Amino acid sequence: MESMIMSVEDIGWDRYLADRTKGMKSSVIRELLKLTQKPEIISFAGGLPAPEFFPIREFDEACHYILTKHGEIALQYSPTEGYQPLIEYIAESMSKYGIWVELTNILPVSGSQQGLDLVGKIFLNPGTKIITGRPTYLGALQAWTAYQAQFLTIPLDDEGLIVEELPALLDANPDARLLYVLTNFHNPAGTTLPYERRLELAEIARRYDLILIEDDPYGELRYEGEDITPLFCLAPERTIYLSTFSKTLTPGIRLAWVAGPKPVIARLVQAKQGADLHTGTFVQMITHDICKRGLLRQHVKNLRKVYRKRMYTMLDALAEHMPDGVTWTHPEGGLFLWATVPETIDTAEMLETAAERNVAYVPGFAFYPGGEGGHHSMRLNFSYADEEHTVEGIYRLGTVLKEALHT
Amino acid sequence: MESMIMSVEDIGWDRYLADRTKGMKSSVIRELLKLTQKPEIISFAGGLPAPEFFPIREFDEACHYILTKHGEIALQYSPTEGYQPLIEYIAESMSKYGIWVELTNILPVSGSQQGLDLVGKIFLNPGTKIITGRPTYLGALQAWTAYQAQFLTIPLDDEGLIVEELPALLDANPDARLLYVLTNFHNPAGTTLPYERRLELAEIARRYDLILIEDDPYGELRYEGEDITPLFCLAPERTIYLSTFSKTLTPGIRLAWVAGPKPVIARLVQAKQGADLHTGTFVQMITHDICKRGLLRQHVKNLRKVYRKRMYTMLDALAEHMPDGVTWTHPEGGLFLWATVPETIDTAEMLETAAERNVAYVPGFAFYPGGEGGHHSMRLNFSYADEEHTVEGIYRLGTVLKEALHT
Repeated sequence: MESMIMSVEDIGWDRYLADRTKGMKSSVIRELLKLTQKPEIISFAGGLPAPEFFPIREFDEACHYILTKHGEIALQYSPTEGYQPLIEYIAESMSKYGIWVELTNILPVSGSQQGLDLVGKIFLNPGTKIITGRPTYLGALQAWTAYQAQFLTIPLDDEGLIVEELPALLDANPDARLLYVLTNFHNPAGTTLPYERRLELAEIARRYDLILIEDDPYGELRYEGEDITPLFCLAPERTIYLSTFSKTLTPGIRLAWVAGPKPVIARLVQAKQGADLHTGTFVQMITHDICKRGLLRQHVKNLRKVYRKRMYTMLDALAEHMPDGVTWTHPEGGLFLWATVPETIDTAEMLETAAERNVAYVPGFAFYPGGEGGHHSMRLNFSYADEEHTVEGIYRLGTVLKEALHT
Repeated sequence: MESMIMSVEDIGWDRYLADRTKGMKSSVIRELLKLTQKPEIISFAGGLPAPEFFPIREFDEACHYILTKHGEIALQYSPTEGYQPLIEYIAESMSKYGIWVELTNILPVSGSQQGLDLVGKIFLNPGTKIITGRPTYLGALQAWTAYQAQFLTIPLDDEGLIVEELPALLDANPDARLLYVLTNFHNPAGTTLPYERRLELAEIARRYDLILIEDDPYGELRYEGEDITPLFCLAPERTIYLSTFSKTLTPGIRLAWVAGPKPVIARLVQAKQGADLHTGTFVQMITHDICKRGLLRQHVKNLRKVYRKRMYTMLDALAEHMPDGVTWTHPEGGLFLWATVPETIDTAEMLETAAERNVAYVPGFAFYPGGEGGHHSMRLNFSYADEEHTVEGIYRLGTVLKEALHT
């Protein structure tokens, strides 16, 4: 194809760009997702659900049903507030955690990433201080960097955010306004915040007048232990809760939700109107159809078994193939664990060698604001590769690490 | 359902909100979309395509084909850059206007509204001056108000933007950086910018170093006359072009695209990663399947006939039922025309009476930055109501206007 546009002069676009673009860069994880498309790689890098278990037939039936019965509604514009029957289903499904909400407490969004972006849009001025764990979910860092947020961090241990370090940080930064926390099966750390820490966090948030942003994409994917009360129940007046269909149903439909106090949801609706008018009518309706027929519940039950097995396969393989000095977390659910290697190894530098050996992970620095930390850690995903590939991939990774330690 | 969240105290959310939320409000058009759900209303308010012509069977077949053949890809995460075969189709379809682009000149987005939002995100600092017509598309105002843009305006006549007024505005505002223009079948005005004005605009943009944002959602829906070369061809080095599948295929899938110089597209990709990771894989793939089988081309041909007939029905009904002193534009395509009423009537005030009589329109002030203008105008959509309802609706509107003039 001829190209006219490609050959035009560059008018020097940088001089036109808004200040906020200075912090924007392509996320490491997105670049790595491209790597995972190379078929010979065993990838522990992405946060991809196992596609071989996608409920494809159920989708096909739901598409046919919705198009046949409600095609004129499903393909039309719809209100920003979302498809009411889907919201009812979400409200009902959240009640199992003891969260009782009304329909105007929930806003369907185009993936949790949009929820994070909209939260940033309504709360963050340039320089607004937001507290995260170190490490934390890199998509949140990316969303809020675009609003020129200032990140403050507190460390994690095996039980997640070390909440007792929070008061000192808040005394030193009384203007910090928001705290972002992944309560269940942390991305990337794999940790789960115990009930006592949640209570303490709720109490501190009240004392210091903090807004809590509770990100819970994996809550349904618990393989051990019991559900723990969400922060959203413990401090409902000041918690904004996010969850998604990406990990339980499928991510390719881009469907998630934000729950929170009504004044917050009303503001998010306004922000969303300007951002993309509304979440796709069609995907909201087919998702609702799948949910209402009980297929999602059934599917999640099955997924728990599959992912539990994959997680234990990875844990066993790590025990077998990792050299001394490598440690890792033992998650109770979710998609990720966090491995720490000896300090002589930089996981970002080692990635190239690993990719040559056809195994991939996300280097830990990607999960630290400004990349300041995590140089000796990595995130490993255990949902995507099957058992055979998991064992082989961890073997390869062990080999790469052993070689790195002996040079 | 019990409600715990609804009854929590309001912690005073306003004090937490970012400065940019001060300008955010629910758009009049979105509120009116809710009104259109009342079945007894004849609505000329929304910009809704005619749902009775949605290619529902084609969607059903495409869903079945894609899920059966490519389900594991279609329901999975995918790159922010978009689904390559769809981009190839878009590039090819744009070539009919003499626009030759490469794949990295195009980014699929979650509806044109997201394109406008992302353009704002990468180019607008608080106070950045952006020039629009008066009136202009209110979704653009909403998107860019959230980035605290400062709007400068130039008036429209029957041929759209009065380009010759631009140099004086630019001499008085040498720091204006962007100009937003709807070249074909303007929303809300219904006007089309002639070739000579486009040439002049391209020349002025070069002279004053302006970025042009060309919004062209309706270009394919031409009912009279010949296609006119887009600005994107006349000033390819400085034009960002937006178009969409919402008006040609269906809006409920939220699928549109931005085309532009590669450095701009690369920046938009970064901004989109933080905003929603990527546009839905599933909707990109089913849309591509429908397009590649030639069904969209066929469908648009049919739509042109349907909408052309509806437009003439409205024009004839206006001629028959409007009182003296009411004038309106005669579009060559698109979905809207713009009617102007005597100055004794405020169209926003009259809307309540109109709604009581079960007819709806969008009052003109909604299309003016800050609502400063358009008080004696209204936007009328002619794509949604069929001929019978159009005649009846315009009759009702004429009656309301006659009564308003006689009181």
